[in-house]
Amino acid sequence: MTQLSSQTLQRTVELLSSWPGVGRRTALRYVLYLMRQPPEYLKSLAEALGRLPEEVQTCQLCGNYADAPLCTLCQNAKRSQQKIICVVEDIPALLAIENTGSFQGLYHVLGGCIAPGEGIGPEQLRVRELLDRVKQEGIQEVILAFSPTPEGDTTAFYLHKRLQEFPLRISTLARGIGFGNELEYTDDLTLARSILQRIPYSPMQG
Amino acid sequence: MTQLSSQTLQRTVELLSSWPGVGRRTALRYVLYLMRQPPEYLKSLAEALGRLPEEVQTCQLCGNYADAPLCTLCQNAKRSQQKIICVVEDIPALLAIENTGSFQGLYHVLGGCIAPGEGIGPEQLRVRELLDRVKQEGIQEVILAFSPTPEGDTTAFYLHKRLQEFPLRISTLARGIGFGNELEYTDDLTLARSILQRIPYSPMQG
Repeated sequence: MTQLSSQTLQRTVELLSSWPGVGRRTALRYVLYLMRQPPEYLKSLAEALGRLPEEVQTCQLCGNYADAPLCTLCQNAKRSQQKIICVVEDIPALLAIENTGSFQGLYHVLGGCIAPGEGIGPEQLRVRELLDRVKQEGIQEVILAFSPTPEGDTTAFYLHKRLQEFPLRISTLARGIGFGNELEYTDDLTLARSILQRIPYSPMQG
Repeated sequence: MTQLSSQTLQRTVELLSSWPGVGRRTALRYVLYLMRQPPEYLKSLAEALGRLPEEVQTCQLCGNYADAPLCTLCQNAKRSQQKIICVVEDIPALLAIENTGSFQGLYHVLGGCIAPGEGIGPEQLRVRELLDRVKQEGIQEVILAFSPTPEGDTTAFYLHKRLQEFPLRISTLARGIGFGNELEYTDDLTLARSILQRIPYSPMQG
C-alpha cells in the first residue's frame, strides 16, 4: 500500500488500522468516508473519543461502564430480580447477556478469569467484591456465566467453592453453547435460551 | 440492541455505526476495543480526526487530498511520466491505481461522473481544470480511467470529444478477464470484448 498524499490522512489511517478486524484497506475506506462527512460530524466524533477516558467510569458495584458512580443497570430499581447476580468475565459478556433481554437481575464483572499460567489468581479479580455483595445485598442466587473454556470452568469451580458458605442457589448457563465458543459472539437465541434454562451448578459438569 | 450503561459510550457507538459496512454490533466492538486502549491513543485519534477538516486540503492541480496547495504526487519531480494525465472519477479510484505501482504519471480527479438524471453535468465536474492542464502542461496522453458503468462510459465519451482539439493520445484502461477470474463465470459482454480485442500471446505475460 502506497503512502497517501496527505500525512494527516496517512496518520489517521494508521491509527484506525489497529482496530479489531480493520486492516489498512478498511482503515483507508473509513478515512475516505470521514473526509466526505460535514466538519461537525468529525468534531462530534473527535470530542466523543477524547471524552471516553475522562467520562466513562467503572460502576462501583458491578464493574460495568458507567457515567456515574453507579451504572444505569445497578441504578434501575425496576429490574425485577434484584436478588440475583449474574457473574461475567468482562463487559462484552455482560452486554451479550443484557442484549438478550432475558435477564432482569444484577451483574458482577469479574474482570477476567482465573489463569494461573498468566499470573491471574482470585486476588487479581473482583472476587472479594462479589462475596461482599452477596453478603450485604442478601443475594439469593448467583449465576456463573462464563465462556465454556478451561479458564471459565476453573473460575466457576473456584467461585462455586467460595460461595458454598452462603445460603444461595448457584447456577450456570444451560449447555447449548458449543465448546470453545466465546460468549461475546454467541447468537442471541442460544444465549437467551441458556440463561432462561440455567441449571444448578455442579463441579463435575465442567 | 439494548442501550449501553454509559451515554458517552452509547453516543460513540452511534457515531461509529454510520461508517461504511459498520453496524451497531461492529461499532460496539470498536468502542470496547477503544476503552481498552491507553488514554494517549484516544487523544491522538481524537486530535487526528478533529484536524482532518482543517488540515487536509484539495490539491490545486489534480484534486487529490493534500497537506499543502499541491499534493505529494504533483510535487514529485521523480515521477517519470509527467506528460501523461490519468483522469479518474474520485480519490478512491486514484488510490486504487496508484496502489498498483504501475503508473508514473499525473492524475486528475474529476469529482464524479456525468449523470444528467442527478443533475451532474460537465459544469459540476473539474472538466475546465483538466482542459487547462492539458493546454498549459503540454500533456501528450490522457488516460480515461473510469469504471465500466453507463456513467463512466458517458463521461469518457464526453471528455474524448472535448479533448479532440489537442494533439494527444487518448487511451482507456484495457478491458478483459481479470486475473484469477474463471472463464466460465465471466459475463458475456466482457468475454465478447476480450475475444474481439484479443492481444498477441506472450509466454512471459502470464
